[in-house]
Amino acid sequence: MTTNSVTAKLKELSKLKFDMFEKDFLLTWEKSDADIRATVLTAQIIRHLYGSNVSLALYQSGLAVSNFRDQSTRTRFSFASAANLLGLMPVDLDEGKSQIAHGETVRETANMISFLTKVIGIRDDMFIGEGNKYMREVASALDEGHREGVLHQRPNIVNLQCDIDHPTQSMADLCHLKEVFGGLDKLKGKKLAMTWAYSPSYGKPLSVPQGIIGLMSRFGMDVSLAYPEGYSLLPDTIKVAENNAKKYGGSFKVTNSMEEAFKNADVVYPKSWAPFNVMVQRTKLLHAKDQAGLKDLERRCLDNNAGFKNWECNEKLMSTTRNSKALYMHCLPADITGVSCKEGEVSATVFEKYRLATYHEASFKPFVIAAMIVLSRFKTAAKILADLNRRRPKRISG
Amino acid sequence: MTTNSVTAKLKELSKLKFDMFEKDFLLTWEKSDADIRATVLTAQIIRHLYGSNVSLALYQSGLAVSNFRDQSTRTRFSFASAANLLGLMPVDLDEGKSQIAHGETVRETANMISFLTKVIGIRDDMFIGEGNKYMREVASALDEGHREGVLHQRPNIVNLQCDIDHPTQSMADLCHLKEVFGGLDKLKGKKLAMTWAYSPSYGKPLSVPQGIIGLMSRFGMDVSLAYPEGYSLLPDTIKVAENNAKKYGGSFKVTNSMEEAFKNADVVYPKSWAPFNVMVQRTKLLHAKDQAGLKDLERRCLDNNAGFKNWECNEKLMSTTRNSKALYMHCLPADITGVSCKEGEVSATVFEKYRLATYHEASFKPFVIAAMIVLSRFKTAAKILADLNRRRPKRISG
Amino acid sequence: MTTNSVTAKLKELSKLKFDMFEKDFLLTWEKSDADIRATVLTAQIIRHLYGSNVSLALYQSGLAVSNFRDQSTRTRFSFASAANLLGLMPVDLDEGKSQIAHGETVRETANMISFLTKVIGIRDDMFIGEGNKYMREVASALDEGHREGVLHQRPNIVNLQCDIDHPTQSMADLCHLKEVFGGLDKLKGKKLAMTWAYSPSYGKPLSVPQGIIGLMSRFGMDVSLAYPEGYSLLPDTIKVAENNAKKYGGSFKVTNSMEEAFKNADVVYPKSWAPFNVMVQRTKLLHAKDQAGLKDLERRCLDNNAGFKNWECNEKLMSTTRNSKALYMHCLPADITGVSCKEGEVSATVFEKYRLATYHEASFKPFVIAAMIVLSRFKTAAKILADLNRRRPKRISG
Repeated sequence: MTTNSVTAKLKELSKLKFDMFEKDFLLTWEKSDADIRATVLTAQIIRHLYGSNVSLALYQSGLAVSNFRDQSTRTRFSFASAANLLGLMPVDLDEGKSQIAHGETVRETANMISFLTKVIGIRDDMFIGEGNKYMREVASALDEGHREGVLHQRPNIVNLQCDIDHPTQSMADLCHLKEVFGGLDKLKGKKLAMTWAYSPSYGKPLSVPQGIIGLMSRFGMDVSLAYPEGYSLLPDTIKVAENNAKKYGGSFKVTNSMEEAFKNADVVYPKSWAPFNVMVQRTKLLHAKDQAGLKDLERRCLDNNAGFKNWECNEKLMSTTRNSKALYMHCLPADITGVSCKEGEVSATVFEKYRLATYHEASFKPFVIAAMIVLSRFKTAAKILADLNRRRPKRISG
Repeated sequence: MTTNSVTAKLKELSKLKFDMFEKDFLLTWEKSDADIRATVLTAQIIRHLYGSNVSLALYQSGLAVSNFRDQSTRTRFSFASAANLLGLMPVDLDEGKSQIAHGETVRETANMISFLTKVIGIRDDMFIGEGNKYMREVASALDEGHREGVLHQRPNIVNLQCDIDHPTQSMADLCHLKEVFGGLDKLKGKKLAMTWAYSPSYGKPLSVPQGIIGLMSRFGMDVSLAYPEGYSLLPDTIKVAENNAKKYGGSFKVTNSMEEAFKNADVVYPKSWAPFNVMVQRTKLLHAKDQAGLKDLERRCLDNNAGFKNWECNEKLMSTTRNSKALYMHCLPADITGVSCKEGEVSATVFEKYRLATYHEASFKPFVIAAMIVLSRFKTAAKILADLNRRRPKRISG
Repeated sequence: MTTNSVTAKLKELSKLKFDMFEKDFLLTWEKSDADIRATVLTAQIIRHLYGSNVSLALYQSGLAVSNFRDQSTRTRFSFASAANLLGLMPVDLDEGKSQIAHGETVRETANMISFLTKVIGIRDDMFIGEGNKYMREVASALDEGHREGVLHQRPNIVNLQCDIDHPTQSMADLCHLKEVFGGLDKLKGKKLAMTWAYSPSYGKPLSVPQGIIGLMSRFGMDVSLAYPEGYSLLPDTIKVAENNAKKYGGSFKVTNSMEEAFKNADVVYPKSWAPFNVMVQRTKLLHAKDQAGLKDLERRCLDNNAGFKNWECNEKLMSTTRNSKALYMHCLPADITGVSCKEGEVSATVFEKYRLATYHEASFKPFVIAAMIVLSRFKTAAKILADLNRRRPKRISG
């Protein structure tokens, strides 16, 4: 990015009527268009300032607490990196080392970890109907704690993946699309295929496909969602995409054919997930601690998966996309045929062709999270960033 | 707190003859009255400066090592927050990831983790006769390491709960009492009921009740300790409270009646703990890794507990306190009847009435720990804080 | 160290033709003599500045990622301390909390943890033929990521112990020798005995003895490697020591007699390790997850060890060293007879005599790691340190 272009972006940001101060980032579709654009612009600006050795340490101290209720590499390091970049200290709430149960004590824990905390990142994606709800319980407890004078400040929550959405992923993906296609307005009329793909594993969250169709349908894209019969998503998220298609002048189609989705696509996002109703059953079995039931569900589910091994993103399918060169996207790690598994989501040759592109896609995540923090915590974020760009305090001295 | 009142507190602090520089904080009753008052004042001043966006980053670098030999949420986050506030980096010594045994190698480990370390916080509350002793072994190893030129500085130790005392808790409680009653001198003549309460769990440490009677008896309070027959505390801590009552003109009584303790109390602190002699047996069984013995002890202990389910803090008991509105205190989490357990320490209605007050009580802990660090590491702590209050470097910029 | 001597060291450093900028530190014998000398000097200078309350926070933000594939106390805290000293935030990659497998995905993980990362420290010492190789795979992935624009900067790798070398240990040991003997040039002609010693444990890495003979043979020392028949080291590392002896005018001898090695030694380093060929078998069994085989190998190995219980460093052996007062060294923790085990590497009286000296030896490690980071990341490291020494920004204010 040139110096000119960062100035232009700062100007564009200063004109947007976004409203993110003191607001949590829980679902992209709760955010206005200006909010989404501001987040992308801010991520790009922060990335540029970082690359220009400008320090973004807006804090002298303060905690950024993360609570990962599921495994994570990319998001964990992105959250830690973003926090550290801004001068906050990432601290992981390891629920195993504390004595936290679901339910009644959520509001207590929320306050106990927040006395000097600015932001709380939460990943809770295993239980359908619960992850996002949990975040809102935390939010409500923080509201009360701040209102009642327990907390000096009310930390903002960043959704690091829930049962419904994965906004730090989809927003990083959007930044990637913006850079690849040369602008958000260039996405209009482009076809995006969000498709299921075969994987030898089971129980992968629905939040990525749901997040992608919910966000990309806002830019006038022709979004095609494809999955084998039975692998449907959470119905509410389908409605979000349908409504967006109407509102923003794109289209949204659901099909049971990977071929149909890939045909003339400009962007393909083939990725495995578990069927919504399986996830619902799984949630019940997990609560009941029914190990035999879980084992049985897994077996049935893998058997079912095995009927769709042909849902693989390979050269043949790629050749049917727009000019045979759709952009391949993935949230990583991908199940690569012959590499990380015998048969997987994508063939080795297709993945290798786009491997570095997927790394580049992932590289936006720390900056997206930093943008979410800055916009939620600083009323005059645009002015502050412009000021940093002028003053240019050094990130690395010497 | 107004600007005036922080100035007054800084002045008060500057006049106190406290002696905490380069001293560990292991037991409140090893500290002079001036030390205790200085710690409370410093915690209040730091809290005020924090709330006024004044940076307290006195360090550019340095480690604050914690060693939690038992689970923790509140204290873990309070220690990390305090360290970060002062510019230190909290690092947890996870003994499972190192190869640390009890005994001979304590002095080695103490030095190995301390080359660039300013403070070490230790929680070791499971073994009667050992937790506090362990802290002193670490202290002695640090003395030697510093004396012999191994360590550039001798880190100070903060007791984050041991078998005897829980000073960061009791000092936070004291700050709370000071604010609720309008001054430490206002505590004189107030009745505090530190009572056992029923809980369906077993093996809770004795350090909170011991810490409370050992500290609050220094302010001329009428301290009433109540527990069912057999649930006595460590004899030495009883003596501390008795001596304090004589010295400071309050009183200290032990009773087997919760009703008697609550009667006309200004403050009630109902909390479960295991009997001292059970903890002694448990320590032996833990050392012997006698799982059957432990199981048996637990069963007998829970059976015994079950005979005292009527030791619950409820509306009826609360109505017997001073004007029916004693201050309810708890170190959290509380066992709440019908909420976190079927029958517990406190009824849901009583707890709900004081829930936010208990959060407020807990909110002092990070500032108390920060005060302990500042007073132990800076000879001219009072002057430094006054200077910060004048210069007002920003904690959050932008 | 006096102010004069730090100025002299800064001058000496500025004249050295070292070439460490943007280079990993994987094996000492890949480094030039100037590199080794620059690292020792820089460690000494940083140590002095640290002790003089000069802040070395060259970074406002940035991550220092560690990946410990084996347990660690000393190195873990040294790495965290060094990172924090320079203004970086240590973050541990806990592979158990992510989903990382060996092999194919190394290059992906390497990039995913590196978007805002300056240095990666790796310990991987359990598998013969793999630890150092793994580091080079990470290095190559980082090269690609940086070259292809995925990474803003290419983090440097510090070897925190592998199957071949343990450079942060051997370099700390070298700093210790330099201070004890009054200069690196004073090491010429001194006899160093690197000997095996009995331990009731099994499977200790070879990297320490290999690292010691590979490094100390560069200073004209007479290096004597002694071990019972069968306990040979990795053949390539023996060649390194042999070649060094020729090149630098010292000597390198292998013997099966501890007595011979100790005779007239100026320095002794008695330490247990597993035979190279046992480690090779163990690697295969670990890969095959052959628990019975591992159990059997351990039993046979311990039986074999037991034949060499007389390989203990005791008063009698020490009395045969130069003037009966060779410097005893150990990487810690040592297996001390009658203290940490029944029969071990060293008698209690010998160890106690040198205990604080071994702590002092260990105390160089954080500064050695800081030196490795500074030299690999700052082209004008010598100038930057000289500048800090002039400006003297405060590490602790107040």
